[in-house]
Amino acid sequence: MPDAAKHRLEALRARMQAAGVDLLALGPGTHMQWLLGFYPHPDERPCLLLVSASGEAFLMPSINAEGSREHTDIAFHPWADADGPDAALTAALADVGADAAKTVVLDETMRADFALLLLDRLQGAAHQFTDATLGALRMRKDEAEFALLKENALINDRAMQAGFAAARPGVSEREIAAAIRAHFKSEDAEPAFTIIGSGPNGAFPHHHTGDRKLQPGDAVVIDIGGRKDGYPSDMTRMLAVGHPPDGYAEAHALVDRAVEAALAACRPGVRAMDVDAAARRVITEGGLGDAFIHRTGHGLGIDVHEPPYITSVSETVLDEGMVFSIEPGVYLPGRFGIRLEEIVILRKDGPEVFSELPRTLHVVES
Amino acid sequence: MPDAAKHRLEALRARMQAAGVDLLALGPGTHMQWLLGFYPHPDERPCLLLVSASGEAFLMPSINAEGSREHTDIAFHPWADADGPDAALTAALADVGADAAKTVVLDETMRADFALLLLDRLQGAAHQFTDATLGALRMRKDEAEFALLKENALINDRAMQAGFAAARPGVSEREIAAAIRAHFKSEDAEPAFTIIGSGPNGAFPHHHTGDRKLQPGDAVVIDIGGRKDGYPSDMTRMLAVGHPPDGYAEAHALVDRAVEAALAACRPGVRAMDVDAAARRVITEGGLGDAFIHRTGHGLGIDVHEPPYITSVSETVLDEGMVFSIEPGVYLPGRFGIRLEEIVILRKDGPEVFSELPRTLHVVES
Repeated sequence: MPDAAKHRLEALRARMQAAGVDLLALGPGTHMQWLLGFYPHPDERPCLLLVSASGEAFLMPSINAEGSREHTDIAFHPWADADGPDAALTAALADVGADAAKTVVLDETMRADFALLLLDRLQGAAHQFTDATLGALRMRKDEAEFALLKENALINDRAMQAGFAAARPGVSEREIAAAIRAHFKSEDAEPAFTIIGSGPNGAFPHHHTGDRKLQPGDAVVIDIGGRKDGYPSDMTRMLAVGHPPDGYAEAHALVDRAVEAALAACRPGVRAMDVDAAARRVITEGGLGDAFIHRTGHGLGIDVHEPPYITSVSETVLDEGMVFSIEPGVYLPGRFGIRLEEIVILRKDGPEVFSELPRTLHVVES
Repeated sequence: MPDAAKHRLEALRARMQAAGVDLLALGPGTHMQWLLGFYPHPDERPCLLLVSASGEAFLMPSINAEGSREHTDIAFHPWADADGPDAALTAALADVGADAAKTVVLDETMRADFALLLLDRLQGAAHQFTDATLGALRMRKDEAEFALLKENALINDRAMQAGFAAARPGVSEREIAAAIRAHFKSEDAEPAFTIIGSGPNGAFPHHHTGDRKLQPGDAVVIDIGGRKDGYPSDMTRMLAVGHPPDGYAEAHALVDRAVEAALAACRPGVRAMDVDAAARRVITEGGLGDAFIHRTGHGLGIDVHEPPYITSVSETVLDEGMVFSIEPGVYLPGRFGIRLEEIVILRKDGPEVFSELPRTLHVVES
């Protein structure tokens, strides 16, 4: 087992003990990727990593075992298509001494049938998700993760500029997205998402990039991410074609002040809800509180959305090493939307912003 | 609501009634795609379609609601990040009259936390997955689905030939995969997977395509799929660089006879296990039974793997309109692997094979 996996398993066991948890179960996905550095081929065949105080074991479909063997020396309890997983699950639970587990942590992202295969077996066991154990560890990034996130953020800065360069009247949202995707690929990053919301489309936070062509006077939301070396990027900037609509400049300045207020509120020991409140207060005082219809941010790590979530109700206490977005926005139906998004890592003295690209409105000629 | 969705909901309710089910819950994914023709943006925010005998309703994160509104007139019970989903779930359950549901069908592919949000609310309810209801309907393809699968199969035939054309000594698995991916893209299909297992790598059914270069005497497994217009393809053929290894020709002929035997066994009314047995008998009688380490096939529809599964234990009764793979294989560690895969649709009189590409070994010059 790689040293990183050993250290993370050790830290996980300490968290499990503190939380009074007997057993943790992960499906093939990003929790497992973080813990072990790989995950087996995910398909409909139940595959679980079981971790208890005394050991680890895999419930493993035989057909997918070979590809995983090179990555780990954790015991496999294989099962063939002809047999189904029941006997192998019994053996795996016995292997880690968890036949009678009373408190189980489940990977909240795994398939429902994987989770219920285990829960139906452990009759009467209480379940919780990973928040207090694995999730709490994943929130705090180490310097290797920081370096990967920084590399990706700088690629994103350049991809955003490629999007700016492609924008002019008559060019479609889809064509701008294509230019951005091509830029990510030119730096060996996989494009992950490209939300291009032009004009009134910008008023939908998760708009599906389409065939609408840029027109003079459009404000355009550009929210993009790529992925290289296992880690992603995520950033939102605003563009205008010529003169932006009435009210735009004031709203942009307001959202930018909300970003600044949230950044100023970010300190180790502060609750996520207090950071959300700092951004929300600025926008509410500016008269657009009803138009700020989503949370202020989300964590970023192997997943583009992961804890900590910066919401108005989250009591998660922010800590050094946490990486998350600050992305207030206002959405004015029929007119325009504005979102400005930074990714930060929380340092002892406050947040360090990853991007080096200003949040000023990028204006192209109409 | 589109007519297709109306008809499918009606057929689903009939199945639910026959199965004694009070409530069916789907996450944003392919079950919902099949039923309604779309699904909302999937993220960590709980999103469920609830279907009861009396109606349908969505538990819907507000932030993702706008993009879905244009696709359906089903009622949304929206919830904001600041509030969480609890109150909206209460309202949605009341809307469909399922507050006290006793038997619930869960989308087996949805996130564990979505499923448990619902199950924890419906204390004491029994759960089952979609096999007897939605899954049973999805197995039977209509002619529109057949046409889409046929279109994709013929693109796959041509992508396979592009892979053949790229193969020669010194070319890597990854380079062959790149040629195949480029072909899919040239026909506006998204490459979905490209398993290129050369020489000893072919002995791992789910081999990760890598940097190994083709050598004279290699047998190469090429298992590829693409996706266009919402439906996928999946096919496996074999290639050799010059003279294949000792024993290869006999084993190839054996696997081909196993495909033929399985095809001959496919008739409406036959159990899936009997089709698996037909293929397995041929390979066992040929002395390689231990090397046929997986099931004979899987269904193909919106998902690349879906019911019916053609396994040695499946009592699923095959019926007209079902689409599935027939893909026996033998895997000889350190030597080579052979898999030959056809996708078929079951007609009244037997299976119709989608591909028009022969299963003969494609030999390139060494």
